[in-house]
This record gives sequence, structure tokens and C-alpha cells, in this order.
Amino acid sequence: MMRHDNFRCEADRPRYSADELAADLRWWAAANYLTAAQIYLQDNAHLERPLAADDIKPRLLGHWGTGPGLSAIYAVLNRVIRETESSWMFVTGPGHGGPSIVANVFLEGTYSEIYPQVGQDAAGITALCRRFSTPGGIPSHVSVETPGSIHEGGELGYSLIHAAGAAFDNPDLIVACVIGDGEAETGPLAASWRLPAFLNAGRDGAVLPILHLNDAKISAPTVMGRSSDTAIADFLGAQGWDPVFVEGDDPPTVFTALKSAIDVSYTKIRKNQNTDQPVRDWPAIVLRTPKGWTGPAYVDGVPVEGTHRAHQVPLPEVRENPDHRRQLEEWLRGYQASRIFDDGGAVHPDITALAPRPELRMGAGEHANGGKLLRPLPLPPLADYTVDVPDPGRRCLSSTQALGEYLRDLYALDRTPDSGGRFRLFCPDETASNKLDAVFETTGRCWQLPIHDADDNLSPSGRVMEVLSEHLCQGWLEGYLLSGRHGIFASYEAFAMISVSMLVQHVKWLQHAQNLAWRAPVASMNVLLTSTCWRNDHNGFSHQGPGVLDAVLPLAPGVVRVWLPPDANSLLTVADQCLRSRDHVNVVIADKQPHLQYMSEDQAREQVAAGASTWPWAGNQTPDREPDVVLAAAGDIPAQEVVAAAEILRDRLPQLRFRVVNVLDLMALLPPDTHPHGLSDGRFAELFTADRDVVFAFHGYPRAVHQLVHGRPRPDRFHVRGYTEQGTTTTPFDMVVLNGMSRYHLVTEVLRYAPAPLDGVDAVADYCRNQLERHREHIRTYFDDLPEIRDWTFVDAAR
Amino acid sequence: MMRHDNFRCEADRPRYSADELAADLRWWAAANYLTAAQIYLQDNAHLERPLAADDIKPRLLGHWGTGPGLSAIYAVLNRVIRETESSWMFVTGPGHGGPSIVANVFLEGTYSEIYPQVGQDAAGITALCRRFSTPGGIPSHVSVETPGSIHEGGELGYSLIHAAGAAFDNPDLIVACVIGDGEAETGPLAASWRLPAFLNAGRDGAVLPILHLNDAKISAPTVMGRSSDTAIADFLGAQGWDPVFVEGDDPPTVFTALKSAIDVSYTKIRKNQNTDQPVRDWPAIVLRTPKGWTGPAYVDGVPVEGTHRAHQVPLPEVRENPDHRRQLEEWLRGYQASRIFDDGGAVHPDITALAPRPELRMGAGEHANGGKLLRPLPLPPLADYTVDVPDPGRRCLSSTQALGEYLRDLYALDRTPDSGGRFRLFCPDETASNKLDAVFETTGRCWQLPIHDADDNLSPSGRVMEVLSEHLCQGWLEGYLLSGRHGIFASYEAFAMISVSMLVQHVKWLQHAQNLAWRAPVASMNVLLTSTCWRNDHNGFSHQGPGVLDAVLPLAPGVVRVWLPPDANSLLTVADQCLRSRDHVNVVIADKQPHLQYMSEDQAREQVAAGASTWPWAGNQTPDREPDVVLAAAGDIPAQEVVAAAEILRDRLPQLRFRVVNVLDLMALLPPDTHPHGLSDGRFAELFTADRDVVFAFHGYPRAVHQLVHGRPRPDRFHVRGYTEQGTTTTPFDMVVLNGMSRYHLVTEVLRYAPAPLDGVDAVADYCRNQLERHREHIRTYFDDLPEIRDWTFVDAAR
Repeated sequence: MMRHDNFRCEADRPRYSADELAADLRWWAAANYLTAAQIYLQDNAHLERPLAADDIKPRLLGHWGTGPGLSAIYAVLNRVIRETESSWMFVTGPGHGGPSIVANVFLEGTYSEIYPQVGQDAAGITALCRRFSTPGGIPSHVSVETPGSIHEGGELGYSLIHAAGAAFDNPDLIVACVIGDGEAETGPLAASWRLPAFLNAGRDGAVLPILHLNDAKISAPTVMGRSSDTAIADFLGAQGWDPVFVEGDDPPTVFTALKSAIDVSYTKIRKNQNTDQPVRDWPAIVLRTPKGWTGPAYVDGVPVEGTHRAHQVPLPEVRENPDHRRQLEEWLRGYQASRIFDDGGAVHPDITALAPRPELRMGAGEHANGGKLLRPLPLPPLADYTVDVPDPGRRCLSSTQALGEYLRDLYALDRTPDSGGRFRLFCPDETASNKLDAVFETTGRCWQLPIHDADDNLSPSGRVMEVLSEHLCQGWLEGYLLSGRHGIFASYEAFAMISVSMLVQHVKWLQHAQNLAWRAPVASMNVLLTSTCWRNDHNGFSHQGPGVLDAVLPLAPGVVRVWLPPDANSLLTVADQCLRSRDHVNVVIADKQPHLQYMSEDQAREQVAAGASTWPWAGNQTPDREPDVVLAAAGDIPAQEVVAAAEILRDRLPQLRFRVVNVLDLMALLPPDTHPHGLSDGRFAELFTADRDVVFAFHGYPRAVHQLVHGRPRPDRFHVRGYTEQGTTTTPFDMVVLNGMSRYHLVTEVLRYAPAPLDGVDAVADYCRNQLERHREHIRTYFDDLPEIRDWTFVDAAR
Repeated sequence: MMRHDNFRCEADRPRYSADELAADLRWWAAANYLTAAQIYLQDNAHLERPLAADDIKPRLLGHWGTGPGLSAIYAVLNRVIRETESSWMFVTGPGHGGPSIVANVFLEGTYSEIYPQVGQDAAGITALCRRFSTPGGIPSHVSVETPGSIHEGGELGYSLIHAAGAAFDNPDLIVACVIGDGEAETGPLAASWRLPAFLNAGRDGAVLPILHLNDAKISAPTVMGRSSDTAIADFLGAQGWDPVFVEGDDPPTVFTALKSAIDVSYTKIRKNQNTDQPVRDWPAIVLRTPKGWTGPAYVDGVPVEGTHRAHQVPLPEVRENPDHRRQLEEWLRGYQASRIFDDGGAVHPDITALAPRPELRMGAGEHANGGKLLRPLPLPPLADYTVDVPDPGRRCLSSTQALGEYLRDLYALDRTPDSGGRFRLFCPDETASNKLDAVFETTGRCWQLPIHDADDNLSPSGRVMEVLSEHLCQGWLEGYLLSGRHGIFASYEAFAMISVSMLVQHVKWLQHAQNLAWRAPVASMNVLLTSTCWRNDHNGFSHQGPGVLDAVLPLAPGVVRVWLPPDANSLLTVADQCLRSRDHVNVVIADKQPHLQYMSEDQAREQVAAGASTWPWAGNQTPDREPDVVLAAAGDIPAQEVVAAAEILRDRLPQLRFRVVNVLDLMALLPPDTHPHGLSDGRFAELFTADRDVVFAFHGYPRAVHQLVHGRPRPDRFHVRGYTEQGTTTTPFDMVVLNGMSRYHLVTEVLRYAPAPLDGVDAVADYCRNQLERHREHIRTYFDDLPEIRDWTFVDAAR
């Protein structure tokens, strides 16, 4: 394949002329000026008069230290883009360098196009300064409001992961990813250097890591900053990168070397992309420049430029202290405002002319506003995968296996002549374990390292991304989605906690993106939690944890959806809906083991739409009167235990009227003014009555339900059983017993709320007590096969 | 310093004789036999008769693949320990290798000493097999129940971090840390290779990483497994390690090479420890052996040994399939039971004789049962640090700054002639930012890399552990605590989420440890969350997240404590109590910025003991009657807003009777049968009345309070305001307005529950509405200094 057959190689391109260098340094001066001005100035942004105290913002917020390095890279990249006419994205690892990135996208014009109230004229420049880090203004980080950004960088460490996600299946894109200010010490970043093992040069775009070593983080040096070039070269080389080093504090020298490094890298990327061989020498750049470069060298006699003291606001007392103010003025005047602005105070046209043509400007790239490029997935017809459920609660099969077959065919449909594909499954080496392995009938595990005969389903062109890192899986998918594609992250439930803070940040991103008309909606983040707490009976306590649920419940109701499909047809329906949805985070919890099946395809569709439904076949009610009590479930194992409890009650206490409700969309429990999926008051009362007690079996920690039903009538009538952090290596049935959620516990709880007097209550209570005692005895002596798999009966699960 | 002046160097020690090799291979055969037997056999554990279906467990659980490698390392280490008389700990990264580690600690005798019901005799061997992965028996992972373990390894990736934590300040200890089965792909593990930048050879113990490359994880190869020796050597060498490679599938060859590698490593460790120079060439071992080594080579015609198929149970159908059963029998007989057991069926004395002397056995090491070594910290007298509070709610200062002074002197007291220290502060480069920098008056930041003139407080012997990785901070402290020391992890609140799954796993560990009499209590994990959501007004939305709280609330009530000290004296009192406590996870939330001070030292002590108290000075009540409404707060900013709201109400609606309650111990809200800190029903009613409405200002997501108060009388009367995920770069006061928790919102909410008719309610409502409108106008035009810092008034915070 010669995909990039007409790229211009290094030798063809013009050298970096003195004029070009001077022009780029002028862009850089403008960017540095505007960076500092945003941090300091509320007025006199053009320095038309000496700086006065009132020109200074009353509160100085923002980070200077990383900015000059970021702006230097941006300036040189602009020239390379113009020379090569190639498409680049800029990912800012040290996202606190917000003022610098804002300065650059302002200079290139994209900022003003998106925010016309901040024009490139004199008033706009003052507005830019005033708005930065001001309430209602421009946030201090490279946030969702920043043109060209898919990465806020607030939580350091994910830049190279996001960059990789954006590059997958985007063959024409190069993602420049600046890693700086110590984030290379974080775990996720450290793991993300393994990208060359997963990046297919012939199919994917490229990532150009630019490790920006300015020596320090907030208040101390960084490990990489104090490592030798040899150590860094070995470290990167060992993982498939071939770094070029650029170092210095003399701007022309650094710019010239940086230009050459990017040229070399570009050439190498194109060469790599023209081979069919796995690439083990992707270019990377290591850039050593002073922290706070061109800022104050000393402040109050203490060195600042080139030290950690330049990290944030290098002159902290500019408003109060005339010496600091004078020093700020000298610093700003050093950039020569007369060369930055024209006579009218607008950005000088010589500078704006340095931006690439409009659509190639990095602030305008549609890959960083992925919704613009989004096309719906060709989803397979659900009916081809749904299972027959002749009799609810009898048939037993793996719901995720059915989903695997659906995803297998989705992969096939997604492969069109004009597209390498726009869907990927991300999973930490658990695709087969999670019973989704039907996908391997149409695609393989992506793998660029050697492949042996005994390997299963490995392929350089595989589209299942397996790496034993939840951080990489979650973050790669984030980058993939934000650049306009679709995907699913499937994880053992407990281990999705590992990357849950990334999920929280992604919710925040989408929450604010929804407020920005210029950001087109992107495909939702779909997280499938399987191998759940109830069915990690074999792996034990460390594998039992439903906490992701608690972490996402309080987040933006406009973004978060939590689905608990209890069977295959509902899981398929939910998956289909999630893959069609936009700008959401869908957390789907469904275990991989064989489970009872309850709903036909139609019933599943109805219940997914309704959020929660009555299961009349399981309850014992008459239309003419309210039930005495409600039995509710959310989740597959809870549904199983509730259905079994219902059978015990129907058999042994037929005079008790009860209803069985299944909650599939957890957010339906929230009041409707709190969440768009919240059931109306009327519908809630239809399901749960106005005042009857509700015995609720819940997949997760019980008190999560209590937080959801606050605001509903008499919330104290909800009596929730769920996972109470009781676990070890044991049987599945013992898990529900240990956590007090077994059918016998549920029946016993129901009896408490039965209307008195009701004959037979004591006998049923005795029966449950005996059954639990039999179970415990059984466990004490030995364990046997699992009743719900081998010999399912509702009545005596423990036999 | 010549600390290890009498260690025997390589040349002095006897070579690995053929007899020794044969003996160690016999131990290995025994360990492998017992590993497989635990997975498969419920009877006939000595293979005294042909294997029958009934001898096989009905459910086959456990992981074989990593086991033979683990046992080989264990066997050779035993010999090195005997030769060198040195103290070692074994950390099992692939913790699913539980049966292998159990087999080894059983052979060395520690298992039977701790669990006498499983003796080293014939009955004990059967019991061992029957109990493994059986309900009520031995968990399948290297869990807290496993002698010698500080690391379950369920969540892969933390092994080298825990190993490092155990080595800090334990100069005589060497921690062998096996990293295997793909965990090197995880982020935390990838970051943990940076240990040499933080390990002081002259003060700390050593860590010997053993990267066990058996090619595969669950179902695919690993990146490191398919990387060349050169790449791995470069990767490790770049980070301060000097690896020795051992590779093969011929047991005598591998054992001989491994023995030599450990000998060389031991010698090098001792040499390193005898220098005063930072060490950049710590030994490490890269061990390449087949996955499932010595297990079935092929099963059903498919290769298993040496492939991912050996990961878990290599022969899955042994009970049903006679061919599989025959293959299992051949496999087990290959280990020669007659050389493993004596005539009575006990472990052969020739094998048990290979264990090191009792106290040096790795299963018996007290460092892995750290409570045995724990000595209380010499805590400074609190009274030296408490602040004067002449008038509650007027003085403003940074509570964490006061804590920093306390910690400064704790560091000084901790430094005794007989101890290098047993307390450390772990913080991701934020010690100064979090205003704890007084500690630098007595100690420095630990740093083994070059130090420059412009650096602040760096020192190779520093005892503050700063690295920009929450995973490393959290995990190092876990290892430090579990090996018998004390510490604090201080983090920006939002970013503690990054490592929250580690915190969850640590709670699980402590929860189960509390049930084991042989595990002595360890010092608590103290997590200080500062730079909180309310006061990350400058950094913006990504830095605003109180979710750690929601993640820990549902966990073991015997372990988890959540403290919300609103001022310096209460923070100091809580810190003192946390540092004295054992086996808990204390989450302490206290912002670093200047905050109002409310409590004297005595009042703080009383309230910390009580969990929650009335603040009579803030309320407006008479002893003779119940208040009309209760105003409650939990957290510093909530207390500030509640106190301000109370002042508005006292001034403008004096006829309203209300009480102000402050909740400092969040778990006090839980019912007493749910959490040991839960307030008694009587005390709860004393504070919150039996039925009056409670307007509650809360630090975190509001519904967290709703989940806590479920089970209290009329929980729906709690009306909670808190952080509702509304944020950006703005002012602190705007944060409380955006989230509806400002004093004006609180007053407005209180008015809803005031007894009607009450004169003046409308006027107060108008006042609040106007104040909020004034604030919004103020924000729209510009922002000013923060009222609570510059010119605190309760009445008009927005002026």
C-alpha cells in the first residue's frame, strides 16, 4: 500500500529560511504576550500606557510555565502544516497551559470564529484578556470550550491515550501530543508509551509524542526532566519510538532544531505509513526548554525562569507591588507589542498570515469536534439475535454471548470499501472471558508485535483492542469517540473502578459540550460491566465490587444513563439504543454467565422504553385491588432471586397479593425533575403504589437506591437488599445468601410487611429459615454445582 | 556507612551443587503437585489409587499457568535465604497464583502453624486440597488469609508499588516482587518502575523485581512477553535497573541460572546498600519460562503448556471426560508422589528441611504482618498547634497550614537514634500547594536523582514522598502501612479519584484482616482530601469532584471513617485520632484555603468524640421548646454558608427558632446498627429533633446524605444542598451559588419549612432573591476579591 504516495519528503521541502524563522518567532512572541496578558491584564492589553495597578486583575489565575514551550511547538507545527498540507490535531497534556493554547487559536482566527464576541481586533484582544479565568469567561484549562481540543488535561496522564484514540482509523491524521510538567510520572501515561504495539501504520493515523521536559512540575523536578538523554532514548526506543532531541534556551536555535525534528518526524511517519510491516521506530520528539521561558529570570532575587517557580504565576504581587509591576511591564514590552498589533490594535496581519489554511488550522480541525464527522453505525437488525423466551424465568443462557454475536455482525457491516471502520471494542484481555468472543469470527485482536502459531485471533489489522490496562481501554475509546467514531468498553465490573476517574472526567466533558452549539454531538461512551460482583464467586473478594455505579450516579443527569438489563433480549435492546445515542455515558451492567431469560424481544423493547415494568406473570395480584406489597428487582441476579421469591410466595402464601416490578433503567427511580429518565409521579405510583412497602433486590450497594428514591412519596418504605461487601471464593448462591439478598431473605422481608393477620406467614418464615440453615450446612460440608445452572428450581435452590 | 559489612559476597558462598539443585527441584515438584492438586482434587490427594471421577472437585477453580514459575522462584529464594540468613518478603503480582503460594507456605510449615486444622500430615494435605477454592475454605487468590502476603493482586498492577512501600525504612528487608501475566501493561505498574528515583540505598530496604514473562495473559500474549531482551534491558536500564535474564524450559538449567541471578542480585543489593551514592543500577531479574510449565503439553490436540491456554484450568473436563482425567493423573504422577510424601502421607522431611529457619520463612516474616512490628508514633502535643478562637466564625486561617506545623514536629519526634523513621507523608507534588510545607523545616522531598541549586527541599534522605502519581502515593503508603509503619496520603480531592479503586481494595483487605486473629492491627490508611471542589474555583471543572466520598461510603463499616473537620482545631484533633487508630481507612476532607474558625481545642475534642454537635452560638433557640427547623452542615464551606445563613435568619427573622448542627463524623448519620459510629436514636433526635425539617448543607453530592439517613425517622425531612456538579473557573462564592448551596439558598429553603404564619418571611425571601441577583450581576460584570477572605461579613457576601 502506498497511501501517502505524494507526500513531500524532507529533501524536497524548502529549508527553514531566516525569514520564516523570524516570522515564526514573531508568532511566538505574540502568543507569549497574549498568554501573559491573559493571566495579568484586565485593561491596557496593548500596553498603550505604563501599567497601572488598576490594569491588573484583582486575582491572578493561570499557568505560565508550560506556555512558551507549547506556543513554540504550535508555531512550528503551523509552518509544517502549511508546507505539507497535512492534517494535524494538537493534544495538550499539560492542560493548565490553557492561556497559551487560547492565545494560539486566537492568533490563527478560530477562537474569534467560534466566539465572535472576541474578535481579532483591539476590543477583542482586551476582551480575551478580561475573560480569561474570569467568572463566566474562559476557563483556565484547555477545556471543552477551547477550539481544537479533545483533552482538558486537568487530570494529568491521559494525553497520549487520547491522542492514540483519535489516531485509530484516521489514516490522514497526525496527532501531536505534548506530554509535559511531570505527567510522564503518572501510571496511565507510563502505560501509554506501549502504543506502537497497537498502532497499525497502514490503517491508522500517527501520533507524534512531544515529551516537553521543562525540568519541573509544581514545586519539584520531574523524573524524566532529570534523566539523561541516553536514558530517555533507551526508554522510548524500547517501546517502539525513535526520539529526536531538541534542547536549548536560545529561541532561534531551538526553533530551527524543532522545525528540523518535526520535518524528520513527518517524513518518517509517511514512510512508516507506506510499509506493510509493523513499525517499531515511530518518531517522537524530546524537547528540553526552560520552564517559563522568556518570563522573569529572577523575582525578588530568586531564580524563576527555568525553575518550578515559573509553573503558575511567576510575579504574584503585581497589583500591590510596584517592583513586580515594573518587572511585568518590562517582560511584556520585551515582546514588542508594536510587532504584534497593527495600528488599530488588531493582531498584525503578518502574524495571522502564518496560520495554515482555514480547515487545516489545528483549532478548526473537525477531528477535534468529532461529531461533525460522525456517521451512524450500520447496526444489524436486532431480531436476528434475540432469543426465544417461551416461558419467562425458565430458559438459561449467557446474555453477553448473544451480544457477542450482534457485535460480530456489526463489525462485518462496519467494514465498507470507503471506510476502514468506525467501531471498535476495547477490553482488557477479557473479550473471550466475557463471552463476547463471537467477534473473533469477523475480526481479530489488534497486535503489531510478533505472532506465534499457538496464538488465537491476533492480527495486525484486528479491530478488537485488548490491552491489560483499563486506563488505556477507557482512554483510547474516549479519544476514538471524541474524534467522531463509535465503541464499547467492556470490563470486569470491579476493575472498571480502576479507570472510573477517567469516566467521571468524560462525563464532565460531555456535560459542558452539550452547552456548546458549535460542538456537534458525539457517539456515547458505552461501558459494559460484566463478570459482576455476584458472579465473581470464583475469583473472590477483590473481584467483587459494584462501585462504578455509585461513582456515576451523582454526575450530570443530562449525560449519565445506567442500564441493568436482566436478560439477553433486554441487553441487546439496550446495546442497540446505546449505540444510537449521542453525548451520553451509558453504563450497562450485565453478567456473562448463563442467566434466566424473562422477556421476549417486544417485551424487552417496551421495558427499555418504559425504564421499569411490572412482570405480571411473576406476581400474584388481581386487577381490582392494590397489592399488599411490591417486590422489585434491578439487575440479573436480583431478578432471579425476586422471581424465585415470588414463586415461593405464590406457592406457599397465595393469599398475599404482591406485584413484581423490574427496573431496567436505574435513573427511572430518580424524580423526573432530577433526571430526564425519572418516571413521572403517576407512573411511579402505578408501579410502586402510593404507600405500600417495597422489597427491592438491587445489583449494587443497597443505599444507592435510597439516594435515588429520595423525593418520591414515603421513600422509607423501600427496603433494599443488595451487595453489602460480603464476599470470598464461594458459590453463586452463597453470594446472595452472604449478602442477605437470597430468595429466602427476600421472602422473609416481604412477610414483615404482609397485612396482619395472614394465615401461613409463620410457616413460610420457618421454611425460609430452614432453607437458609440447610444452605449453610451444605456450605459447611461441601459445595455442589450451582442450582441455577444445573438443575434450576425456584423452590429449593440449595439442594 | 557499611551497613551490611558482614554479608557474604558471591565468591564466598558455596556454589549450587547438584544435590542442592536436586533438592530444590524436589521442593518444586512438591509445590507443583500441591498446586494442581488444590485445583483438581477433593479426595485421593496422595494418588494412592487411580483417579476416579469422584476424586475430582465438582467445580474447578484456580489458576495454574503462573504457578510453576512462582514456585520455582520461591524454591530458589528459600535456598538463598538459608545461605545468606537474610530477611525477604515475597510479593506475588499475579495474585491469582494463589494455589502455588499456598503450596509453598504449606511446605515451609507456616500455613499449618497459622491454620492448625491443615497440618503437614496426610489428613492436612487432603484438607488443603478440599479447602482450596471451596466455600468457607481458602480463597483462590493470594489474599489476606495467605501467610506472608501483603498483596492480593486481584487488581493487577500494584505489586511493585506495594513492594516499594514495604522496603522504605526497612533497611534489612529485601522484597522479591514477581510481576507477571501481563500486569506490566497496567498504568500503575508501568509507573512503578521509577522506584530507583525514590529508593535510598543507605536507608531503605531493597526491592528485587522479578519480571516473569511466561508470554501470555488470559487469552493473548503480553507486550513484554513479545518484546526482545534488548528492548527490555533498555527499558529497565533507563529507569535505574540492571536486569539479569534467565530463560528456558529445562528445569535444572533454569534453576541453576535463577540461583545465579538471585546470588548476583543479592550481592549487588548489599554492595549498593554500602554506598552513600544514589544507585542507578538496582538488580532485577527477567525470567522467561513457559506458562503452565510441567503441565499438559497438549489437550485435545491443542497446545496448552507454554500458551495462554494454560492460564487457568488447563484440563477443564476432568470430572466428565476420562481422557482428561487420565491426562491429569499422568501429569500429577509425573511429580512422583513417593518423593513428596513420606510413608504416612505427610510432607517428606527432606522437603520441609529445605525451608529457611522459622523466622526467615517468607510466609512467617513479620514485615508481612506489619502490626507485629508496629510501634505507636510519638505524636506532638496537640495544644502546641491549636489556634485561638475567641469568637466563633470570625477568624480566618488555613487549617492545613496548622496541620503542616503539627506534621513538621511529628517528623522531628519520629527521628530517633534507633530508627530511621516510621512515618511518611505521600503527596503528588502538592505538599506546598496543599499548605503542608512546614514539614520541609524538618525533612525534605525524597529524591535520588541530580539536585540543582534552584531546587527547594530536595534530599536523598528526605521523608516526604512526592511523585506525580496518585497510584504510587496511595500504593506506597499501603505497602508502608501493611509492613508496620504510619503515614498520610494528601491529595487534591478530585484527583484522589484516580487511585480510588486501590483505596477500595485496601478497605477490603483490612475488612478481612480484622477477622484474622493472627494478623495484628496495622496503622490506619489516612487520606487527606484537600484543595476541594468548592475551592478549585481557579482550576475549573476537572478539579471539582467530591466522588471519593461516594466510593467509600458503602464499604465495610468496620473500616471506613469519613471526617469533615470544618476548622483547624477539629482537623488537628481528627489527625491526631487518625494517627492513633488502627485498621481503618480515614478519609479526611479539609480544604487548604483560609477558612473561618469555629471551635476551641476543647470544643473540637468534644465534637470529634461526639461525631456531631449543636452550635448554640449560631442558632436561635430557647431551651423550653423544640426548634421550628434545623440547619445542619458537614464540611468547611457548608459550615461557612450555614453560619452565614443563620446570621441572616437571626437578624431578619428573630421569631424563627432554629438550631444549627455541625456534622464532623459523617458516619454518625448512619443508623447505629449499620455503622459503629452511627449516633444512637436518642442522640440523633436530640440533634435533629424527631420530626422537624432539616436543611442540610453538605460538602459532597447531596444524595450521599439521603443514603446515609435512610433508617432514621422521617428521612424525607432532610433537604440537602451540596455539590451538584456545577462548576468552572469562577469565584469561591459563585461556586456555592452555582450549586445552590449559598447562604441565600439555605435561608430560602429554611423559609419553606418555617411555621406559618410567620411575619417577615416574605421580606427575607425578597432579600435573598435580591442578594442572589446582585451576585449574578456582579459576576456578569466582573469579579472581585472574595468576601470570605478580604472582608468577611455574613450579611453581604457578594458586595
